[in-house]
Amino acid sequence: MAQTVGAGSLLIAWQLKDKRVLIVGGGEVASQRIDSLLTTDAKIIVVSPSDGLNPRTKRFMDEYPDRITYHDRPFSGPEELEGMDMVLTALDDVELSRNICNVSRNARIAINAADIPDSCDFYFGSQIRDGPLQIMISTNGNGPRMANLVKKKLQGALSGLEGTTITKVGKLREQLKVRASGVGGDLGKRRMKWMTGVCNAWEMEDLASLDDALIQKLLDEGWENDRVPTFSELGGRPKANLKSAAAASSFTISPAIGFVAGVMCTLLVVLARRK
Amino acid sequence: MAQTVGAGSLLIAWQLKDKRVLIVGGGEVASQRIDSLLTTDAKIIVVSPSDGLNPRTKRFMDEYPDRITYHDRPFSGPEELEGMDMVLTALDDVELSRNICNVSRNARIAINAADIPDSCDFYFGSQIRDGPLQIMISTNGNGPRMANLVKKKLQGALSGLEGTTITKVGKLREQLKVRASGVGGDLGKRRMKWMTGVCNAWEMEDLASLDDALIQKLLDEGWENDRVPTFSELGGRPKANLKSAAAASSFTISPAIGFVAGVMCTLLVVLARRK
Repeated sequence: MAQTVGAGSLLIAWQLKDKRVLIVGGGEVASQRIDSLLTTDAKIIVVSPSDGLNPRTKRFMDEYPDRITYHDRPFSGPEELEGMDMVLTALDDVELSRNICNVSRNARIAINAADIPDSCDFYFGSQIRDGPLQIMISTNGNGPRMANLVKKKLQGALSGLEGTTITKVGKLREQLKVRASGVGGDLGKRRMKWMTGVCNAWEMEDLASLDDALIQKLLDEGWENDRVPTFSELGGRPKANLKSAAAASSFTISPAIGFVAGVMCTLLVVLARRK
Repeated sequence: MAQTVGAGSLLIAWQLKDKRVLIVGGGEVASQRIDSLLTTDAKIIVVSPSDGLNPRTKRFMDEYPDRITYHDRPFSGPEELEGMDMVLTALDDVELSRNICNVSRNARIAINAADIPDSCDFYFGSQIRDGPLQIMISTNGNGPRMANLVKKKLQGALSGLEGTTITKVGKLREQLKVRASGVGGDLGKRRMKWMTGVCNAWEMEDLASLDDALIQKLLDEGWENDRVPTFSELGGRPKANLKSAAAASSFTISPAIGFVAGVMCTLLVVLARRK
């Protein structure tokens, strides 16, 4: 049933639009936190004396002044947490970090304290992003370095078309909801089933070429008739699949070379014996 | 700097050890939620009339009675949320679902409402798990089907050694902390740097073969002398890399088949001409 039971985390995509996130500290870890938060729409508040600011933290502040509010001072007390939706500590002072954790927890504000895993509501992990696609790799506290090694492997498996494809499929889904509106129930199930059908039947590069006209055609001829037309039925031109083409050539070239080598060797032997 | 700015989620690994998670509903979505939660150590509470239970939800309840508390009744009111650390609704009744969201938000309890993205504190995504390794794929609400397609690609890139390797590296890190204890500061930085050195210098299959004896040897000869010894220096036997071995054989077999075919065809022609 469940693949591995217990001891793991619940991996989730937290929504931070219009939310306020406090970072206490300004060093290297703080710069990593800012990097993660900039991918969201959170309002970022940094509290740190300016002599504790990492060059990268400073660069982020210069580049995104509308996203980051900076207070040049040490953490002054529990009142700093008022109005915050999330708190991240990135401090060398473990005692202070633990205190901030306790105040956050009492105020039911989600907290992450760098380097004190047992005080954290959540952990960070390595991340990959391509437009709407986000991938997170967590080792559940067993070493960030390993997460990065796995990240490199996963990056190698992606074609670079995934982000575009997901955006296009998202547009198709939106347009379908305009045609067949309503939340949940039987209609929701029929929509989900049809979308799954399209995603299963079409290649990723076909989905990536969905423009407004093709989306309307797919809805007219597909959704309205409760079927999934093929990409070429709708006049889509099949593009060469780079990956399969490469695989096919490596399969055909090497036996061909072997064949020629076999012919030549045998001819050499036969010719040598004839003399 | 940051790869893509704005519009994304903060992907995090939420910690649920000894936390109470309420699921309202018992259908297919509820069964998916239970599946995700079973990978953690959360206490799961399900509220749903028994005629709304999906077969998979029932199987989970039978198999994990110590993890799942079941209340056979419809959601009775805000008092159901008392003492909860997280609430997940999996209901067809959108109105009720929205009400539960509001109560949760007022009580500052993290909430996910299936099929009502604008009411969610967080989204779920496709997940891969191999022991301590967890990977999440989120399309930021642009279609679960696409997340599954990406998931399959990523699964193909993993060798299956990653979970074991991460566990072994985690043990090495633990033992290092026993030798050089203390949180944060210069020692913390030196530990992190040395661990990174080991993970960079050693192959994944070498790290996977770290047992207690080898860990002690690595700490004795490496950490104590502030250097990273090679795997073979410590007497580790290099193992065949399964993936490269497989790749090598596919490269040699097909030219070989070609060669034999070449020899046979040529011989046939030569023999035919001799008659």
